[in-house]
Amino acid sequence: MGEAMAENLLKAGHRLTVYNRTVSKAASLKKLGASVATTPAEAVAGAAFVFTMVTDDAALEELCLGPDGLLPALPAGAIHASCSTVAPDTNRRLAEAHSRHGSTLVATPVFGKPDVAAAAKLWLAASGEDSARRKLRPLLNALGQGVYDFGDDPGAASTVKLCGNFMLGAAIEAMAEAFTLAQKSGLDRQQVYEFFTSTLFNTPIYKGYGKLVAERHYQPVGAAPAIIRKDMRLVLDESRTHLVPMPFANILHDHLSTTVAKGEKVDWAGFAERITDGAGL
Amino acid sequence: MGEAMAENLLKAGHRLTVYNRTVSKAASLKKLGASVATTPAEAVAGAAFVFTMVTDDAALEELCLGPDGLLPALPAGAIHASCSTVAPDTNRRLAEAHSRHGSTLVATPVFGKPDVAAAAKLWLAASGEDSARRKLRPLLNALGQGVYDFGDDPGAASTVKLCGNFMLGAAIEAMAEAFTLAQKSGLDRQQVYEFFTSTLFNTPIYKGYGKLVAERHYQPVGAAPAIIRKDMRLVLDESRTHLVPMPFANILHDHLSTTVAKGEKVDWAGFAERITDGAGL
Amino acid sequence: MGEAMAENLLKAGHRLTVYNRTVSKAASLKKLGASVATTPAEAVAGAAFVFTMVTDDAALEELCLGPDGLLPALPAGAIHASCSTVAPDTNRRLAEAHSRHGSTLVATPVFGKPDVAAAAKLWLAASGEDSARRKLRPLLNALGQGVYDFGDDPGAASTVKLCGNFMLGAAIEAMAEAFTLAQKSGLDRQQVYEFFTSTLFNTPIYKGYGKLVAERHYQPVGAAPAIIRKDMRLVLDESRTHLVPMPFANILHDHLSTTVAKGEKVDWAGFAERITDGAGL
Amino acid sequence: MGEAMAENLLKAGHRLTVYNRTVSKAASLKKLGASVATTPAEAVAGAAFVFTMVTDDAALEELCLGPDGLLPALPAGAIHASCSTVAPDTNRRLAEAHSRHGSTLVATPVFGKPDVAAAAKLWLAASGEDSARRKLRPLLNALGQGVYDFGDDPGAASTVKLCGNFMLGAAIEAMAEAFTLAQKSGLDRQQVYEFFTSTLFNTPIYKGYGKLVAERHYQPVGAAPAIIRKDMRLVLDESRTHLVPMPFANILHDHLSTTVAKGEKVDWAGFAERITDGAGL
Repeated sequence: MGEAMAENLLKAGHRLTVYNRTVSKAASLKKLGASVATTPAEAVAGAAFVFTMVTDDAALEELCLGPDGLLPALPAGAIHASCSTVAPDTNRRLAEAHSRHGSTLVATPVFGKPDVAAAAKLWLAASGEDSARRKLRPLLNALGQGVYDFGDDPGAASTVKLCGNFMLGAAIEAMAEAFTLAQKSGLDRQQVYEFFTSTLFNTPIYKGYGKLVAERHYQPVGAAPAIIRKDMRLVLDESRTHLVPMPFANILHDHLSTTVAKGEKVDWAGFAERITDGAGL
Repeated sequence: MGEAMAENLLKAGHRLTVYNRTVSKAASLKKLGASVATTPAEAVAGAAFVFTMVTDDAALEELCLGPDGLLPALPAGAIHASCSTVAPDTNRRLAEAHSRHGSTLVATPVFGKPDVAAAAKLWLAASGEDSARRKLRPLLNALGQGVYDFGDDPGAASTVKLCGNFMLGAAIEAMAEAFTLAQKSGLDRQQVYEFFTSTLFNTPIYKGYGKLVAERHYQPVGAAPAIIRKDMRLVLDESRTHLVPMPFANILHDHLSTTVAKGEKVDWAGFAERITDGAGL
Repeated sequence: MGEAMAENLLKAGHRLTVYNRTVSKAASLKKLGASVATTPAEAVAGAAFVFTMVTDDAALEELCLGPDGLLPALPAGAIHASCSTVAPDTNRRLAEAHSRHGSTLVATPVFGKPDVAAAAKLWLAASGEDSARRKLRPLLNALGQGVYDFGDDPGAASTVKLCGNFMLGAAIEAMAEAFTLAQKSGLDRQQVYEFFTSTLFNTPIYKGYGKLVAERHYQPVGAAPAIIRKDMRLVLDESRTHLVPMPFANILHDHLSTTVAKGEKVDWAGFAERITDGAGL
Repeated sequence: MGEAMAENLLKAGHRLTVYNRTVSKAASLKKLGASVATTPAEAVAGAAFVFTMVTDDAALEELCLGPDGLLPALPAGAIHASCSTVAPDTNRRLAEAHSRHGSTLVATPVFGKPDVAAAAKLWLAASGEDSARRKLRPLLNALGQGVYDFGDDPGAASTVKLCGNFMLGAAIEAMAEAFTLAQKSGLDRQQVYEFFTSTLFNTPIYKGYGKLVAERHYQPVGAAPAIIRKDMRLVLDESRTHLVPMPFANILHDHLSTTVAKGEKVDWAGFAERITDGAGL
């Protein structure tokens, strides 16, 4: 994901220094002209902007505040585009650390799979301090087809991202239940999928994930169940904090949790098998 | 709904006799050239095709088999397009009665609201005996923008219709949970709605129902909660018969049930208030 | 179940004619002095009271109203103790048929397993026409340790029975979730079971079903999953009719449904495996 | 709660120094012979044992490690009986801090309401380092009617406590659903309560909480909804960490969350109103 985004920044003419824990992953970007750093601190030396895309909250905190972390090395006035799916409070807390340091964090989660990122067709949400958000805008524009502002709270865009992943999961579960009912009623699962995604639910989301559900073939793995289970847990943590009952989110989390507990090597949409399996298919 | 469909049949040049329990409802169709019958039996005298669109299974059975019902009066070889949202078994049972009578029932449920029907933009699913389905096709084409065949089982298209209403309900619930979480996190409900329906969920379904959820204003009433609660009960009846766990459907049914129990005069999407109310808003 | 109850009626000094579809099942009762009939009609000839205990609503209706059914053969003034777990409306409808016939149905569902029945330790609920209920009382007293009256509605006691089976299921599910969490937290499943059933939940219900859940050994089969799934469906049918959200009942039904769909040959409490299996154990 | 327990320690002949943030709450214990300290540190000076009973994890950590906290002041070799309902990891973490300090923490959560504590009828679970657990045993015996050992892991007894509160909540929800269904079916809520708590569920737990549910009168407030909602959140946190699907726990949490969001001033069992309210009563 990060690689596709980095490529688009290079294509847009920006100078780029990259860092990845696994050095080999930076090789192709090096060929495209990126410098390669061996620590986060080295990567941000002299930078006006830094983009981060990591797996979870702990990885982001380590990257910023851990040994050779980027924050202490960041030039004053620099702007950090925090692209990972993390808890709103993680971005808020890091934004405060930035503020003390003299830099700024803007939460800039992205919506789309790696192939969407490669095509510079991501959707982005952005929130954080106003002037930093404006300065960052041209770079974000290079990454996707639309950037939406959600105000000054650096946690806000993270909340939007979590809501989005939740809504994707709900669409997948709805298809899993509907297609399985149709199948056990004697209908063709694939035909029902084609009907709905040609008519009422004619969108890339339903078409893309629905295909996996219709075929019951959850390969290749776009995002592992454990990653999105973590996202659903963040959704539920927010729902707990804000006292919002979210019965659908509970179900999604539990289905993903079982998929992880069973060690299934599938795309996260494979949690749809909880329904087909539960129906004895 | 039935009126809009009848208008499109007239526009397509068909001769039409209409029947409604409330005679006044047929007045505007009369102006457009329809004959008006005072009983179902009278309406189908001499007809090659008959369309029915009623509220529930009991109304459909009454219309076909009750006093002055249409079935005994139907000419041999006639075709009955059964458009209502009913249990698959209701259409199967009536199809058998037709078969004994020498006529044929084709299940032809429609997808879309009355304004969609008026614009002849419905989507239709059709299932039932093959040759009857083919003869019926030109008439169905006049009603919508696409007709999809689901084979010979006269219950099959009803199952597809139930799956569709379930998937709509799931989309509404997902938005209710997401928008409420966003709102209680300090975001603007309307802005979150606009973001998602401009990007990942850019479809008339999400835009239309999502607007009601975002504004928490569930007027005008397109379909009453009691009507769609009945549909969700049919979904659950099917899920029970076929041993398919449908946790989302359970939740939708219970939310609609509460909306009916409280006597709320709203569109069925108003069940979304179960979440906002449950969050103390 | 019926056999154990019949034995207690014989022990109490009553004359008894028995009928079972499988004639061999009546052999041991014959040894104890019962007459054996070859049809329901023959069994009730000349009887003042008749007890029925069958698997489901269809079996009960067949027994009463089917070929050689008991109702036409029942002497005027006789009382039918309807012991099966059926829909309240089934008992109500049969009570009306009795009324037309000149006899009376009293719903008398029983609580307890076969070994409890054998020990005459059942609990009974009774509802139906008042004087019939009073006349029936001495016979019911011979079957258990307590009879509770629920008034004139012949459906009322059935509702109570359904509530009871639901509450049993809820206790089993609660133990399944708690014991599984404890086990995955490093505790001994058995020890946690012993703690709770020695302290807060020190009752035969929790001890008996909890033992199965703790040991994950659901043998012997007291009642098959399909039987109790049917009961949970009746619970949900009632909840739908009366507009009562029952989220726990939804979960129990779905777990039992999966257990049936997978063809597991276990006691109904084996639905607890849905949780342990879902946790990857 | 703590007061009742302290009284029993005094009655058993122990010398006791007490501390409460609200000094006046210690007045009655002072009359009974307790010394009163003005800080946690002062309270534990010279002590061989210390008991803590506070509202949540943060309060416990503050009490131990905050300003004038007890841990730095605790004599070497002393034993800390940690009675509060907290996350297993909180007790584990504090146990490590004790270990570094030369003292020992034993998790000793208690089961029972304040009146049960006053009668020295609590049930206790204990886990932590073996020899400390044995030394603590005589004091625990003075507090209740039974102490159960759960091994060396200082988090284990906390898990058991969380499981217990979850099982209580499940019993309450089950009664709420059953009694509401019975009521809407025309039965008397109170009578159904009496039947079940005289027969299958004849235990103080079902009788005590069931009375509140039957009468729909959730006073006085034994424990506030916010307190037990916190407990259910801890249950869910554990279930997430250990990948255990807990659908009942999800429902309990959401019902308590709504009760808190609506600001209802009731005992925590008042979450049962989510069902009666949802049924339109």
